[in-house]
Amino acid sequence: MNQIIPTPSLKRLPMYYRELIRAIDSGIRYMNSSQLGKVLGIPSTQVRKDLSYVADQGRPGVGYNTRSLADTLENFLGLPQPKNAVLAGVGNLANALILFPGFRHYGIHILYLFDNDPGKIGQELAGRPIYDIHDMAEIIHEQHIPIGIISTPSAAAQQVADTMIEGGVKSIWNFAPITVHATRNVFVLNQDLTVEMAILSFSTLHSDE
Amino acid sequence: MNQIIPTPSLKRLPMYYRELIRAIDSGIRYMNSSQLGKVLGIPSTQVRKDLSYVADQGRPGVGYNTRSLADTLENFLGLPQPKNAVLAGVGNLANALILFPGFRHYGIHILYLFDNDPGKIGQELAGRPIYDIHDMAEIIHEQHIPIGIISTPSAAAQQVADTMIEGGVKSIWNFAPITVHATRNVFVLNQDLTVEMAILSFSTLHSDE
Repeated sequence: MNQIIPTPSLKRLPMYYRELIRAIDSGIRYMNSSQLGKVLGIPSTQVRKDLSYVADQGRPGVGYNTRSLADTLENFLGLPQPKNAVLAGVGNLANALILFPGFRHYGIHILYLFDNDPGKIGQELAGRPIYDIHDMAEIIHEQHIPIGIISTPSAAAQQVADTMIEGGVKSIWNFAPITVHATRNVFVLNQDLTVEMAILSFSTLHSDE
Repeated sequence: MNQIIPTPSLKRLPMYYRELIRAIDSGIRYMNSSQLGKVLGIPSTQVRKDLSYVADQGRPGVGYNTRSLADTLENFLGLPQPKNAVLAGVGNLANALILFPGFRHYGIHILYLFDNDPGKIGQELAGRPIYDIHDMAEIIHEQHIPIGIISTPSAAAQQVADTMIEGGVKSIWNFAPITVHATRNVFVLNQDLTVEMAILSFSTLHSDE
């Protein structure tokens, strides 16, 4: 349980967590690796291997206690710990992200919004004031904000990321369709929806083959 | 060039395409695999291998002609071919997706919106009328719509997917935080942002280690 977890396994843990929460909400108290794998399309051997990095084995013939395993995963992923975030680039995507119900459940609180448009600065979105992007590094630094979310156009994204890093964020979630690079030890998650669009395009045209 | 392309290579092609378009916009006429790999953090040998599935080798010492390679990728991915889409679940995420500039460029046109909320049916969003979800299968079938986008709450997502498949879509892009399964030969892209949130949570708390 003290080994370093491989990245592909780490990426599957949130899916197990999500399915366990759904199971708990349905009153299911035990699930084995086959049941957990089936809903996700992951082989049971892989499920057991992934979970072995963070939890004890389930009881033979009974499986994992859903509540106990969900708690273990929740703590391993740090979900109960509140993590504040800033968001730069206030448009429709920002609007959707701010109102996305998931954030709060995952401990991520978007506290400050930034933009460079004088028409937006000083306004509010979803109850949060919009600040001048020129003040972003200072606010991140003073408030010890660990997460930066980027929903600017791609031309601005790298510079915005650099400013967030200058302020001291520990991780960046970039939604601009460009690969943002980080200097220093900052985790960057590039979420380029246009890559998925292209895969969707290809798959739509080839699904009969 | 007639081999079946492996999925990991296929998933990188849109990223090469995106960087080529950016290079073309900056007036760059040739790029080699090292330059293309560097901006994406992909080794040049991998770039050459991925591109070998769809294009001729670049000219030694000169590299790939950016325009020509972009055209090749564009056609391979089917981006110029218009592909109509329906979207089910009209909320903030739907609003962001409809206005996302990428869709049009990737040939994806969201034509019909559906919801089950009587307060939304008959209204408009971004110039598109919102229809009753009970009419979705029929409209998909009559209009030969190949793509279904799901931005409903998770409890409704599988049923919505089943209805889209019943209507005859070829691919589904699911944004509800649940793994949607498809019967028949339908491509499903499950885009669960809560999985990324959990990874972001973990990485934020472990970035100093």
